[in-house]
Amino acid sequence: MKKLLFHLDTDAQPSAFDQVVAYDGGADAVLAYGGVAADNCFPLVEGAIFTRAPKNKRYTAILIGGSDLAQAEALMETVKSQFFEGFRVSLMLDANGCNTTAAAAVAMLGAAHPLKGASATVLAGTGPVGQRAAVMLAQSGARVRLTSRKLDRAQQACEGISERYGVAVEPMAASDAAGTAAAIEGAAVVLATGQAGVQLLSAEIWQASSSLRAVGDVGTCPPLGVEGMDMTDGGREVDGISLFGGLAFGALKLRAHREAISRMFESNDQVWDAEETLALARELYD
Amino acid sequence: MKKLLFHLDTDAQPSAFDQVVAYDGGADAVLAYGGVAADNCFPLVEGAIFTRAPKNKRYTAILIGGSDLAQAEALMETVKSQFFEGFRVSLMLDANGCNTTAAAAVAMLGAAHPLKGASATVLAGTGPVGQRAAVMLAQSGARVRLTSRKLDRAQQACEGISERYGVAVEPMAASDAAGTAAAIEGAAVVLATGQAGVQLLSAEIWQASSSLRAVGDVGTCPPLGVEGMDMTDGGREVDGISLFGGLAFGALKLRAHREAISRMFESNDQVWDAEETLALARELYD
Amino acid sequence: MKKLLFHLDTDAQPSAFDQVVAYDGGADAVLAYGGVAADNCFPLVEGAIFTRAPKNKRYTAILIGGSDLAQAEALMETVKSQFFEGFRVSLMLDANGCNTTAAAAVAMLGAAHPLKGASATVLAGTGPVGQRAAVMLAQSGARVRLTSRKLDRAQQACEGISERYGVAVEPMAASDAAGTAAAIEGAAVVLATGQAGVQLLSAEIWQASSSLRAVGDVGTCPPLGVEGMDMTDGGREVDGISLFGGLAFGALKLRAHREAISRMFESNDQVWDAEETLALARELYD
Repeated sequence: MKKLLFHLDTDAQPSAFDQVVAYDGGADAVLAYGGVAADNCFPLVEGAIFTRAPKNKRYTAILIGGSDLAQAEALMETVKSQFFEGFRVSLMLDANGCNTTAAAAVAMLGAAHPLKGASATVLAGTGPVGQRAAVMLAQSGARVRLTSRKLDRAQQACEGISERYGVAVEPMAASDAAGTAAAIEGAAVVLATGQAGVQLLSAEIWQASSSLRAVGDVGTCPPLGVEGMDMTDGGREVDGISLFGGLAFGALKLRAHREAISRMFESNDQVWDAEETLALARELYD
Repeated sequence: MKKLLFHLDTDAQPSAFDQVVAYDGGADAVLAYGGVAADNCFPLVEGAIFTRAPKNKRYTAILIGGSDLAQAEALMETVKSQFFEGFRVSLMLDANGCNTTAAAAVAMLGAAHPLKGASATVLAGTGPVGQRAAVMLAQSGARVRLTSRKLDRAQQACEGISERYGVAVEPMAASDAAGTAAAIEGAAVVLATGQAGVQLLSAEIWQASSSLRAVGDVGTCPPLGVEGMDMTDGGREVDGISLFGGLAFGALKLRAHREAISRMFESNDQVWDAEETLALARELYD
Repeated sequence: MKKLLFHLDTDAQPSAFDQVVAYDGGADAVLAYGGVAADNCFPLVEGAIFTRAPKNKRYTAILIGGSDLAQAEALMETVKSQFFEGFRVSLMLDANGCNTTAAAAVAMLGAAHPLKGASATVLAGTGPVGQRAAVMLAQSGARVRLTSRKLDRAQQACEGISERYGVAVEPMAASDAAGTAAAIEGAAVVLATGQAGVQLLSAEIWQASSSLRAVGDVGTCPPLGVEGMDMTDGGREVDGISLFGGLAFGALKLRAHREAISRMFESNDQVWDAEETLALARELYD
């Protein structure tokens, strides 16, 4: 029986990245659909849950992707609402790689410095990866701040996180050096998740911090968000601070992504979101 | 040589259900195209008939799907018209599962009561499944009535059936209990093929019939079209009448669908429409 | 590790022909995208180059297709511009089969008569196949003329060829028998690449030529462009002239197309355009 991955993407063009990882994770075929939304996913879910006998439903799984996290979350809820009794398949949310990328980053930062009780800041954290990283840091016991250039965008993200995950994240505005310095004041862990080409944190600021123990940056396109960071850093120490760059995160992200795909085909009732993906990334990184 | 199924769907979103069944029927890869119509299918058919040597053409086949039966039939005719001499591949029409679902239903009802010479009624029969069921019942020697809430819709369906298959089906209006009672007057076999959630036949009416021997309902979403029916009924007898529900039909439908896909790859000149699909469903049900 | 072919097509409907050939050339799965252009290909290229370890990048390759050669060439340049250091995969341009078809024709004509120093004419050569054939003939050392019904269209094609490949091709208008006779005056090799159903060269004209040694016609739909040609001709001699028809070219084209796909997966740094494809067709024809 072939392992079939339904790749439901909220973007018009279904992600090629996710399809390659799906094959490398063990899928025999990928059914890739673009432009999937809550209002047109019903026949797709029917195709996933009504086509195979109960003992074979584990050979079908669904990945939800796309660049808009809110749309992807809404799609995931609608898909789940169509499941009933045994008529379900394993399901993974990874819009723009948000869960696998954030899980890799949080697993690596957390291995460098214990997160429980720590103060952590996610810089430029309103995107999919930043939001998921904030959730995972909070679920790991850290006190978390999330910044945006505009306070209302940070507030909106934190409210969404609170509603969906029941964890508190503090919104802060950080549009210049002073704002950023305030946002990382007392933080042991900082993760930059901003857009390519925008420097968020100068070397002067992070090297002056006495609290910092681990700094990460998910960027893979220079200039990076954290000055002095190298994309290949995988724990390089500078002034007692461990640095982690996007390519180091990326390697673990890919392993976690592939492994999550692989495990989805082991049973038909799994849900892969923030918590499950972080646990996997930690298992693989150890 | 890989078995390639061209899945040409008249809907914008090519059916995921049909793709899963294609893989389970033995296809190694599915080339799924949505929005296929008579005016854009030419390069697709060229891709099917011009790419492989004569002895290998049987490894390519075409399934025509979609929710609009008339569009699918027009597409099938256009595809056929592009075939010539050895330049053809096996072809199956199953718009919205019409042939495989109707074949499963007619095979099971016909096993419960001989169709030759019997009177049969298809309730709410203007959709793809209902139309094909009416054709198959008529081809099996039954006298067939087909109902719709509006007479002109029933007439239109029956005219289309007559033109395409050369069999007579009597159109009837049935918008209330009295109309339905009249439509099944004297019938030994009744099949309900209406939309989900609309009751077509009350228990009072069918239990009062002295002629009925087998009643089916293709619905898989309660409330069903036939009151007192259970979706899992696979011949349960009530007052001497055998009842058949949508999940029982569905299991045979899936077997027939997969097996038809599998057989298409045995030669390059098969055409699967109502008659061939019914014969297969009977073979599998015996 | 599965061999994945990214099929990036500039047409809305990605070519089914190319997908079948991709599977027959050894691809395990094809990621087919339609409507791909320079402005939306970035995430697709990222998916090709960032998903697999360096040693495994050879298991991903890209085919660029579509009916508009200029668009396909622009897309190819954009894709190439995203490659850097080891982050690249093998790449093939075959818009509308232009390179593989032209390569098959030029390989077969060149085997019948040496091209170096010869005079060659491509009739109705402004389309993808005609342009690529002119390039290949010129790269093989022939003096090449390319005709169109309108001189400016021929000039435009020749200028594009000169810019991209640095070879000179002489544009000529040929809209009637006299124009065509002048265009093949002194030519040893003639290839017709016009649209289906339009006769370009009468038997009277080509049989009257004392210079002609080999005549080809890529058409596979009668009436052919060269009167007296048979689609299956694979070197049939008439008055000392070797004739080659579209089905003979097509068989070699398919072999070259499949083999190029197969070879792309041997390393991650190949580029398949006119020159490489012609060399392969010659190797396979010998």
